Amino acid sequence: MTSLSMQPYKGTRDFYPADMRVRNYIFDTWHKVARAHGYEEYAAPVLEPLEIYTAKSGQELATEQTYTFTDRGERVVAIRPEMTPSISRMVAARRQELGYPARLYSIANFMRYERPQRGREREFWQFNADIFGVSGVLAEAEMLTMAYEVVKAFGASDDMFTIRINNRKLIDEMMRSYLELDAVQANLMVKLFDRKNKISPEDFRDQAVDIFGEDAAAGGTAKIAKLITVQQVRDLPKELQEIEAAGELLELFDLLETAGVKNARFDVTLMRGLDYYTGTVFEVFDTHPDNNRAMFGGGRYDGLVGLFGVEPVPTVGMAPGLTPTQLFLESHKLLPEFVSTTDVSIVVPSRETTESALKIAQELREEGVNVEVDISGRKIDKQIKAVLKKQVPFMVFVGEEELKSKLYTFKDVASEAEEKLSLERIVTRVKDYRRKGMMDEIDALFVE
Amino acid sequence: MTSLSMQPYKGTRDFYPADMRVRNYIFDTWHKVARAHGYEEYAAPVLEPLEIYTAKSGQELATEQTYTFTDRGERVVAIRPEMTPSISRMVAARRQELGYPARLYSIANFMRYERPQRGREREFWQFNADIFGVSGVLAEAEMLTMAYEVVKAFGASDDMFTIRINNRKLIDEMMRSYLELDAVQANLMVKLFDRKNKISPEDFRDQAVDIFGEDAAAGGTAKIAKLITVQQVRDLPKELQEIEAAGELLELFDLLETAGVKNARFDVTLMRGLDYYTGTVFEVFDTHPDNNRAMFGGGRYDGLVGLFGVEPVPTVGMAPGLTPTQLFLESHKLLPEFVSTTDVSIVVPSRETTESALKIAQELREEGVNVEVDISGRKIDKQIKAVLKKQVPFMVFVGEEELKSKLYTFKDVASEAEEKLSLERIVTRVKDYRRKGMMDEIDALFVE
Repeated sequence: MTSLSMQPYKGTRDFYPADMRVRNYIFDTWHKVARAHGYEEYAAPVLEPLEIYTAKSGQELATEQTYTFTDRGERVVAIRPEMTPSISRMVAARRQELGYPARLYSIANFMRYERPQRGREREFWQFNADIFGVSGVLAEAEMLTMAYEVVKAFGASDDMFTIRINNRKLIDEMMRSYLELDAVQANLMVKLFDRKNKISPEDFRDQAVDIFGEDAAAGGTAKIAKLITVQQVRDLPKELQEIEAAGELLELFDLLETAGVKNARFDVTLMRGLDYYTGTVFEVFDTHPDNNRAMFGGGRYDGLVGLFGVEPVPTVGMAPGLTPTQLFLESHKLLPEFVSTTDVSIVVPSRETTESALKIAQELREEGVNVEVDISGRKIDKQIKAVLKKQVPFMVFVGEEELKSKLYTFKDVASEAEEKLSLERIVTRVKDYRRKGMMDEIDALFVE
Repeated sequence: MTSLSMQPYKGTRDFYPADMRVRNYIFDTWHKVARAHGYEEYAAPVLEPLEIYTAKSGQELATEQTYTFTDRGERVVAIRPEMTPSISRMVAARRQELGYPARLYSIANFMRYERPQRGREREFWQFNADIFGVSGVLAEAEMLTMAYEVVKAFGASDDMFTIRINNRKLIDEMMRSYLELDAVQANLMVKLFDRKNKISPEDFRDQAVDIFGEDAAAGGTAKIAKLITVQQVRDLPKELQEIEAAGELLELFDLLETAGVKNARFDVTLMRGLDYYTGTVFEVFDTHPDNNRAMFGGGRYDGLVGLFGVEPVPTVGMAPGLTPTQLFLESHKLLPEFVSTTDVSIVVPSRETTESALKIAQELREEGVNVEVDISGRKIDKQIKAVLKKQVPFMVFVGEEELKSKLYTFKDVASEAEEKLSLERIVTRVKDYRRKGMMDEIDALFVE
């Protein structure tokens, strides 16, 4: 028999304990920020009927990028490529029972059939936060404040990222009235704007000319050239400043200033695949030169809950991803050093003291210390090597001598310092160390 | 357009915040017990190549019960129906880099194509814990101690569950030498024993006779009748007592007694689908009359890592499930009452005080309080109703009067008591409440 491949499925990742420490640090930070703002956790199935995606997402996402198949009962199902349709379905199903504003969040995995590349995987993890039931711009202000805080919570300073904001209704008006495009042209122009930072200014201009057609090209491209220089809502062409969406944007920027969000700015070129957004759209960008990319985005989508046959519920949401967040933290050197969740490894010099070591481990556990015992019966140098591989911060040796004196050799792996300590002192040392780790983390939150 | 169904996919569950509180309580307890014993968390992809399941699991599981399909690159993949093959693959891939004993755990979802019924869902969650690299019975003792503690950690008493233990090598010997069955007969007999508690004694006898065949039936059924009365290893027929597996079992029961595991017992009729177990097997049974069933199981499987083309690594593992655990806790009334993770809902009597309420929320958050603000602009009675639906323990009213006096109406939802408190006092009240919740939980662990 040939042996099986040890590789994970293409585009997916195995998380070993060292990878898991980074992931748990990011997830824990998300949980904290979400709960601090009154968001409650939910979860949805990994498999959904395909039609909840085809009904609203971009055609590309629903048809080309989705893992879809027919089950043994002839149902066409999909591994979820995103959370928004699932949570919209859940809200629709319990529309009457939920209290509004309903603030809901989840941390979950998704799959998309894509060519794997840096920062893009077939299986990926996202934090989804959504507020349901608020039609006013206070909901956007809350979501954007949380988007800001979710980055700041990792110790980021304001110059490390920017938040770009636009509005779908403004985009529609811009395409229709200001640039005078029909629906087909507008759709092409939105896609061109989406690619703007990935192509040269010349290519952008050439493709814009193609969309306008020969007659309108000169006037159209002049208008676009002007639009691109717009920095603030009040710099917009007068006819666009007068629409309701412009007013909403001004109100939103006021609220963000009050909330202390310092790096949000208006970006008339931000499009963010328009498929289901109905109002404000935003993206959080990493400003690091090596990682200059969108980290995550969000916006208002008021139409999704209504697809499930109930009265629509206004919604604003966002979805930061694990890998983009990790790349951001790595670029800016914001990731702390992690050790194992195991506090103490007990090294057993000879087989005879194993049972005593097991009892000591049990006593330490009762005091809240996370302990493992080497029960392999191997030589002591092999046991020590294993502890180093696992990045456990402390070793305790339990040999005959230690059992007699009730003083145990306690080794701090990082400093290599050794002491003889009672069990009581070992507990104190471990707890002090943990407390220090927590303080470092808290300190990091207040560094600018 | 007809509207989409609001139902989740058949056999899967939506977890609303109230469901999530129960799930998080169970998951948090698993995390605590695993980490206390030095187990480190890992994660694996939700999709794996199908062959890692067909190579070792039961044929039924790999072929009939697995969600399998062909991806767009012609790879045959499966949504994982269990964790064991994935973690075996991961250990094989980093065999040299891992420190041994490697103690690894995960909490993850799985899918099996089954007819949904009470306690059996198509998508289900499991806690998988495995120890790699220990061939001696100390590994079984550790896993069984952790199985015991994982149930006790929810406040269960010893009479609420039993742990039944057997050994695959003993089963093999019993079938071959003692009952004198050939391989085909032995396989049928194992399956019959597996069904023993689901059929009548008469049916059991009749089917046993069929397996033995006419000539051997009388002697065979007499031997089985004797086997079924066996309560301890030392009651086994002499020829079975002499094999190595019997010695291992005796050593294991000694270790469990030392570790304080009080409800483990030998059960010669425990078979536990033999497909990959190579030594000890065990199951944890709920003793409640309304829920008399296996909660979870585990055992030794030394052959799986080797399927990936590396030297085999001895392994012992277990896999408690979310739904069986929840049914156990419900049967024995062990589930605490939960409230929202949100500590405080700010009720805003008029639209004018909303921005002040947002600032107060921010101040409370900086002190570690989880706060939401009602930004819906609805009437106060609707706001209060929403708080009750969400099961948030406290309300704070921020109206004109409160802003002037800096004393805020603070309402304890459970007792309906109202007070006027400063922000500082509100923080103290919330933290005292949380601390009390934690103490109740800690107390519960020590109730017998």
